Amino acid sequence: MKKILEPLSIIYPLPVVLVTSSDKQGSNNIITIAWTTNLCRKPVCLGIAIGKGKYSENLIRDTMEFVVNIPGKKFLREIDICGSSHGDIINKFAVTKFTAVDSSIVKPKMLKECPINIECKVVGISRLDSSNFFIGEVLKVHIEEDILKDEREIDFIKLDPVLYAQEKYYSFGSFLEVRGFSKKSN
Amino acid sequence: MKKILEPLSIIYPLPVVLVTSSDKQGSNNIITIAWTTNLCRKPVCLGIAIGKGKYSENLIRDTMEFVVNIPGKKFLREIDICGSSHGDIINKFAVTKFTAVDSSIVKPKMLKECPINIECKVVGISRLDSSNFFIGEVLKVHIEEDILKDEREIDFIKLDPVLYAQEKYYSFGSFLEVRGFSKKSN
Repeated sequence: MKKILEPLSIIYPLPVVLVTSSDKQGSNNIITIAWTTNLCRKPVCLGIAIGKGKYSENLIRDTMEFVVNIPGKKFLREIDICGSSHGDIINKFAVTKFTAVDSSIVKPKMLKECPINIECKVVGISRLDSSNFFIGEVLKVHIEEDILKDEREIDFIKLDPVLYAQEKYYSFGSFLEVRGFSKKSN
Repeated sequence: MKKILEPLSIIYPLPVVLVTSSDKQGSNNIITIAWTTNLCRKPVCLGIAIGKGKYSENLIRDTMEFVVNIPGKKFLREIDICGSSHGDIINKFAVTKFTAVDSSIVKPKMLKECPINIECKVVGISRLDSSNFFIGEVLKVHIEEDILKDEREIDFIKLDPVLYAQEKYYSFGSFLEVRGFSKKSN
């Protein structure tokens, strides 16, 4: 038996990423975001939804660039700090002790300790009522060699990403099947 | 040591959903999508990215409505079939044996066997080069009572969703922490 409910956000679990941004003067911030997805293969684009009025939104609008850093589960405390404090009040780099390193193309810094860093430039913004959705074209990807199986395949078990759903963090599971398996076994 | 790579789609793992759509004449389809996220709280909106030229894209454009159905892991075979076959060639409802039931507001059908069904109307489309990103306002949500902890909280362990990353399916993990835990333990 199903209950019929009024609208609620329910596309979960989503992967937790740390987005770094910067304004032209060099003010920096880190924000935890789970409302993110891939968008396009050619060119490679991704999207991040940010609540209106957030400090990171102002920084991204200033340079129209950002970096998506993907942390493993061992950074759960840092993830939580960056998702529940305000960058205009505290310096999240100082509190988390993440190391800010220069990106290869964009102005915002990359987080050295995160095994994946994705440099993006904003190519579109979908304005919604309580948030904005930033569409970023991926310019460069930096991946820790330890979690690469080959040139482009990531060992997600080793990456051990954090998932998010309705105010709670969850761990990643285990491998099930390769896409297309249903054709082979018929 | 990190490798620097050219752009690749890397926001993973993402949750696997089954999107049902319909044109005005009643032709139906089911497409498996992992490129999805929540977008906005007020009004509640979500987004789905669909490769250009897909049959489902034409159906959605015709009625500007769709339903997001969230399956559990036990439907992995059906998920794979709907993600690796073409709705203009085969009838995915017949092949998967999913039961199509009427939605409360929109024309596209809901999949009875999926514990969550989300009725959406399209309120925006971001046109990208190789895909389109449909922004859907959530109109109604149907949730199986068995997976509800209270009025609005979902038991994701019971839901047992499928995750997707780089052509592979993965299982969901286990509970880690509640958002905000870092403030309490300091």
